Amino acid sequence: MAGGTSTPGATVVSRALSVLYAFDNTHRRLTVTEVARRADLPVPTTHRLLRELVAGDALVRGDDGRYAVGRRLWDIGQLAPERTELRNAASPFLSDIHAATRATVHLAVRDGFEVLYLDRLSGRASVPVVSRTGSRLPLHATGVGKVLLAHAPEEVRECVLAGRLRRLTAHTVTHAGLLRQQLDGVRRDGYATTTDEMTLGACSIAVPVTRPAPADNTPAADPDVVAALGIVVPTLKRARTRLLTALQVAAQGIARNLQ
Amino acid sequence: MAGGTSTPGATVVSRALSVLYAFDNTHRRLTVTEVARRADLPVPTTHRLLRELVAGDALVRGDDGRYAVGRRLWDIGQLAPERTELRNAASPFLSDIHAATRATVHLAVRDGFEVLYLDRLSGRASVPVVSRTGSRLPLHATGVGKVLLAHAPEEVRECVLAGRLRRLTAHTVTHAGLLRQQLDGVRRDGYATTTDEMTLGACSIAVPVTRPAPADNTPAADPDVVAALGIVVPTLKRARTRLLTALQVAAQGIARNLQ
Repeated sequence: MAGGTSTPGATVVSRALSVLYAFDNTHRRLTVTEVARRADLPVPTTHRLLRELVAGDALVRGDDGRYAVGRRLWDIGQLAPERTELRNAASPFLSDIHAATRATVHLAVRDGFEVLYLDRLSGRASVPVVSRTGSRLPLHATGVGKVLLAHAPEEVRECVLAGRLRRLTAHTVTHAGLLRQQLDGVRRDGYATTTDEMTLGACSIAVPVTRPAPADNTPAADPDVVAALGIVVPTLKRARTRLLTALQVAAQGIARNLQ
Repeated sequence: MAGGTSTPGATVVSRALSVLYAFDNTHRRLTVTEVARRADLPVPTTHRLLRELVAGDALVRGDDGRYAVGRRLWDIGQLAPERTELRNAASPFLSDIHAATRATVHLAVRDGFEVLYLDRLSGRASVPVVSRTGSRLPLHATGVGKVLLAHAPEEVRECVLAGRLRRLTAHTVTHAGLLRQQLDGVRRDGYATTTDEMTLGACSIAVPVTRPAPADNTPAADPDVVAALGIVVPTLKRARTRLLTALQVAAQGIARNLQ
């Protein structure tokens, strides 16, 4: 404890976590320098932490000298109740919807100002999508995102509406007033749709998954929207009603599994 | 560095990882005392590390005071190339097989002396199974396990055969000589089957997924078995040939995706 600074342990753990959190979906393999910059740590400290994390199987070092997340963290991550309970409750319903439609099926939650995809089923015959399990996309441009944004706390919604709505295709809704109307519609109708807004040639329809209020709760309490369930197809034209029914039945089933 | 012991940082990182690794599939929520015992650390040290890991979003503390893995570790774990590259390569094929059969489909790898399930698709109409993504089962009692054991390094296979083969149902093969014959058969025939060996009423059939040798490699080199692909059904009787063909086609497709 020489120097009288804060507990060395506290500092080391938070620094080690900063090193782990330097990795994300678009930064999966990083050099020491890149980790140091992204974790905001000196290079020698970063180097020592990386060596320790590799020794402890949390990270791996590739032949090219770059670091990546190790399989042991995948194993540990699978134990996170906040992610896996919802995923396990939803899994058989996702499989059933995919088996019935062969379309891409998504289970997603809101994580801050983004959609986080908790699970995705997609066969070779499904329309190509950019999402994959663990990936993040903007809230305003996807079906599951619009559902989650419509049911987000008002301050989150207003913040997104006040910010820049990134244009991903020529069809992305980037006008705040129009998006606001759509979100009102999602809450009123109980579902969201998109047409070519995230990826050209991909339409989506999505519904909320709610955690039912406990029996002893005030009946007037709003049900909690804990996730969104969506499907991506080449066109919604003829299939809209059928897909919506399948999603609503599945969402109710997932909600029952969550009780 | 008072006391002349090893680098304090090194020790703290490895201790913090011991705390994380105290959690597993059958120990998802632990008290401080349980973590301390499983991580082989003094309770005060454990308490301090837990507090730091909660502050850094790696763990969460429940209302009952017990700790669990936090969602941020799930997010980071999704980035592990060793787990996700295989999973992403296999995902559309698993979806296709499930859509065609409605049966439970598994992608599994060998992790030491156990089967680790990397992915599982299972609808509500599928036969109930004990596996889930991230869970581990013994190598000798499942279809994917027999495939992985048959293609494991000889020392691993001999170690399993020399050890106690746990009886999970009355049909589990627990005789080393019989299991050895079965494993010879798996290598000869290119697939494994089980009947009621893990769960009563569940039969399985599984094939290896091989990583093809690079073009410039010696052609005689054995292809690497990197995973097993299996399906669980109530009975194999009539469907065996059809399921085997589907699995073999999918395994070849996955191997191509891995190149």
